[in-house]
Amino acid sequence: MTPDTSNQIWIYDTTLRDGAQREGLSLSLEDKLRIAHQLDQLGIPFIEGGWPGANPKDVQFFWKLKEQPLQQAEVVAFCSTRRPGTTAAQDSMLQAILAAGTRWVTIFGKSWDLHVTESLKASLEENLAMIGDTIEYLRSQGRRVIYDAEHWFDGYKHNPEYALQTLKSAIAAGAEWIVLCDTNGGTLPHEISQIVRDVVKAIAPEESSPSKIQNPKSKIQLGVHTHNDSDTAVANAIAAVMEGVRMVQGTMNGYGERCGNANLCSLIPNLQLKLGYSCIKDEQLKQLTQASRFISEIANLAPDEHAPFVGLSAFAHKGGIHVSAVERNPLTYEHLEPETVGNRRRIVVSDQSGLSNVLAKARSFGIDLDKQNPACRHILQRLKELENEGYQFEAAEGSFDLLMREALGQREKFFELKGFRLHCDIAPCDGESNCLPYALATIKVSVNGKDILEAAEGNGPVAALDAALRKALVNFYPIIGQFYLTDYKVRILNSNTGTSAKTRVLVESSNGHQRWTTVGVSTNILEASYQAVVEGLEYGLLLHSSAKVALANS
Amino acid sequence: MTPDTSNQIWIYDTTLRDGAQREGLSLSLEDKLRIAHQLDQLGIPFIEGGWPGANPKDVQFFWKLKEQPLQQAEVVAFCSTRRPGTTAAQDSMLQAILAAGTRWVTIFGKSWDLHVTESLKASLEENLAMIGDTIEYLRSQGRRVIYDAEHWFDGYKHNPEYALQTLKSAIAAGAEWIVLCDTNGGTLPHEISQIVRDVVKAIAPEESSPSKIQNPKSKIQLGVHTHNDSDTAVANAIAAVMEGVRMVQGTMNGYGERCGNANLCSLIPNLQLKLGYSCIKDEQLKQLTQASRFISEIANLAPDEHAPFVGLSAFAHKGGIHVSAVERNPLTYEHLEPETVGNRRRIVVSDQSGLSNVLAKARSFGIDLDKQNPACRHILQRLKELENEGYQFEAAEGSFDLLMREALGQREKFFELKGFRLHCDIAPCDGESNCLPYALATIKVSVNGKDILEAAEGNGPVAALDAALRKALVNFYPIIGQFYLTDYKVRILNSNTGTSAKTRVLVESSNGHQRWTTVGVSTNILEASYQAVVEGLEYGLLLHSSAKVALANS
Repeated sequence: MTPDTSNQIWIYDTTLRDGAQREGLSLSLEDKLRIAHQLDQLGIPFIEGGWPGANPKDVQFFWKLKEQPLQQAEVVAFCSTRRPGTTAAQDSMLQAILAAGTRWVTIFGKSWDLHVTESLKASLEENLAMIGDTIEYLRSQGRRVIYDAEHWFDGYKHNPEYALQTLKSAIAAGAEWIVLCDTNGGTLPHEISQIVRDVVKAIAPEESSPSKIQNPKSKIQLGVHTHNDSDTAVANAIAAVMEGVRMVQGTMNGYGERCGNANLCSLIPNLQLKLGYSCIKDEQLKQLTQASRFISEIANLAPDEHAPFVGLSAFAHKGGIHVSAVERNPLTYEHLEPETVGNRRRIVVSDQSGLSNVLAKARSFGIDLDKQNPACRHILQRLKELENEGYQFEAAEGSFDLLMREALGQREKFFELKGFRLHCDIAPCDGESNCLPYALATIKVSVNGKDILEAAEGNGPVAALDAALRKALVNFYPIIGQFYLTDYKVRILNSNTGTSAKTRVLVESSNGHQRWTTVGVSTNILEASYQAVVEGLEYGLLLHSSAKVALANS
Repeated sequence: MTPDTSNQIWIYDTTLRDGAQREGLSLSLEDKLRIAHQLDQLGIPFIEGGWPGANPKDVQFFWKLKEQPLQQAEVVAFCSTRRPGTTAAQDSMLQAILAAGTRWVTIFGKSWDLHVTESLKASLEENLAMIGDTIEYLRSQGRRVIYDAEHWFDGYKHNPEYALQTLKSAIAAGAEWIVLCDTNGGTLPHEISQIVRDVVKAIAPEESSPSKIQNPKSKIQLGVHTHNDSDTAVANAIAAVMEGVRMVQGTMNGYGERCGNANLCSLIPNLQLKLGYSCIKDEQLKQLTQASRFISEIANLAPDEHAPFVGLSAFAHKGGIHVSAVERNPLTYEHLEPETVGNRRRIVVSDQSGLSNVLAKARSFGIDLDKQNPACRHILQRLKELENEGYQFEAAEGSFDLLMREALGQREKFFELKGFRLHCDIAPCDGESNCLPYALATIKVSVNGKDILEAAEGNGPVAALDAALRKALVNFYPIIGQFYLTDYKVRILNSNTGTSAKTRVLVESSNGHQRWTTVGVSTNILEASYQAVVEGLEYGLLLHSSAKVALANS
């Protein structure tokens, strides 16, 4: 984990901690694990997992991650310096961060004198001791330490001498990275440049020469952590890198408190493709768009279609001369090639691209399609129709596999739906006993030409529907008894049309050792749910029968 | 319209032209007129109205504006240089721009040699003549001219000599402003700084001294026009201003093609509040948030809640200690005072909330609570119970206000719910005609002791429910006819319990000039929706009756 070239920028992702502070974003333990694995695949070297002292979910996250370890990334636990008036060893927060069992920890401390006296109610000396003690103690327990200097830029503007003392305290105690944080997000790029230059000058003497701060063999390196309150978070991080900073902290899709953190989906391509730094492998950079969309899907937030680099509209061109010019020489109308970040050019009037995506996707399901195969165009056509209706297959690979098999004439018919009816009664709950919500679903399916009518109750309409469907099918396919729903997500599309909006439902199912996701879309949330639940069962049966086939062949 | 101090930055809004290129944005003539008047009130000095040659709506816009003239702003017509191989006087596009009858016109021309030969299919000399002729002709017809140098930064990087010749051609012909455009949005701030410095040096000799370029008495001044493809549009414009540029072109809310234009809602406060430039009056700056929201309303695009300066979350604070610190000294956690841009501090109420959050929140609704008031503890207690059940009041301020009024015994009872019944039939859609989703809701409410039973249909269960409820109440409260739902969000809590998970629904309602959000939670998605819809109506009635009370008291 020691930088090997001065051109290397160490990306530090804090989507799971600072990103999760975004209003309206709430991640389950399972969500956090899936995002961590996605970031690991993307080649992010540092992933901040959470604050193990702050809530039980974050404690569990570090435990669970030991069962499903990451390939390459260092997962980092985050915590503040010890409390005033105690020792590091006695502070329960620090015990919690040690219990997380990570190699690296990030400790944040106060840089701004005003915050020390106003928020911590501690003396300026005590704050220096808190920083030093905490880092020393964690070092003595074998941890490598990143020090986040909170409110760095504001603190430095108000009292540069004191602010620099806090950094020196962290360095003396053994921190390997010093990260300058623009916590309130109010700093502009030219101020960042100037202050980073000052820090390099002020810290370097201790390291014997100014160039050492940029020298990979130096013990101390600088990082930056910016927020977007001035709409300049990405430019601020770039300004810092250009002054010698070598770690950049940010979040996927720029998620974060208030106006968000520096957006890694913009920073990584800017640094790597425009400024010649090295952040992740070029093949990993080609996964950026997919990773951005996967994470917004898991976070259940609509992706920003106008996001730089990874947005659906980022490389959209409108008709006419413009389009033919782009096709002749893309450089004239595009600042970089969309494929380098895994995005694609969209010709808004008639979209021609995408065949290679379908081929690549098919391969990932073990279906070897030939470009010449007419089914290929057919899949693409169907995909476009469905996406136009609001379907999205980024995270619904079960449904996409079924769609491909349908086009290839390989979709096995396990059952046929005849329809369903739902009944729902709600009485207002005034403390009476029988005020539980009630739903009754009646369903008709046909298996091998035989109609089955079943009914089931539930505490909600989708639960009732799911129960009725299983009851109808379990006698034919006993394996269904082992399937269960593990996740259910609802997204309202074109939400400003109110309750008449279209709804997209994602359902994740499991058979105990595999998981798959299916999708449904309708103006009727029940119908959308029903589509996704039905495909979830169908895909489970398909996996089971393929496994049997594979077993028979082996 | 001549700059009077070197500290003045001339804001040039192109929301109505470049902003309207945003995918998914479509403005009617009436929309464009309302936005123009809003921008005029905001004190924007230049408003680009459209390209009169390009479409009939833009022609009508300029005509209509003569009937409803702006107070102070200059409305500007936009057009390209004349076509190759003709004269300016013979070019119908230029006749159209003259017919618009504006004092100022903006002419864009090619700076990049590649575009001249590839897109225009003209010689490099002909392009210089096209720029010169066009501007000279428009000057001869009494127009003042702004020259937009398209693809400036890319063109300059490829062929600086030729690029500079194009500017000189525009200056010689009488353009008063030269605007450097980063049309593809790929340039980073340090490149902008360097290239603007080069331009200042190269152009200044013709004007006798380098300082003249920043001198208000000089004939030529520089402008900048940036796009956000690198996520640095705002920083790029600031970098240009810091090198002497005095006109900034951008759009409200950053609307624009692909990833959008430089966002004026971020640029104006950065330039004026942080860098000491003067753009609009301080009282006008206080209308910025309202103007941003008004324009997103007219554009029928959901406002970006995380937008810097003007977003709903831009000054949102969580957690107990943090909140008391902000109230003591806002400077410690805010980069500027929200009131300066017409936004407000929001104390986000969540289960981490202390009493101080509740008090601060109550004050923001005009309810003056005493810390000693037992209702205060009661609200906090109730809040925690509800949040534990999955309610979330961060974004549901309508429901939180109702909760406070309930605790204080001040919740007016407009109607009482007796319950509802929902019926839903879904047949699989195999290309038959009657396969539309169908839902029927029956509802019973009581108003002033009188029971009302109503039924309504819809294309989804929530739409049917909403329709039935309105039908039942509108005779008693005709104002309900003016309410409509503007947003509907669904979040599955503890989602890994599958379809039995709890559902949280947020409903945003509007009466045309106010918006409010309400929340519902249940294992039954229909019940959760129902709660939120019902509270939405109730809160709308409350706002209406409070307004009446306020009116009666005035």
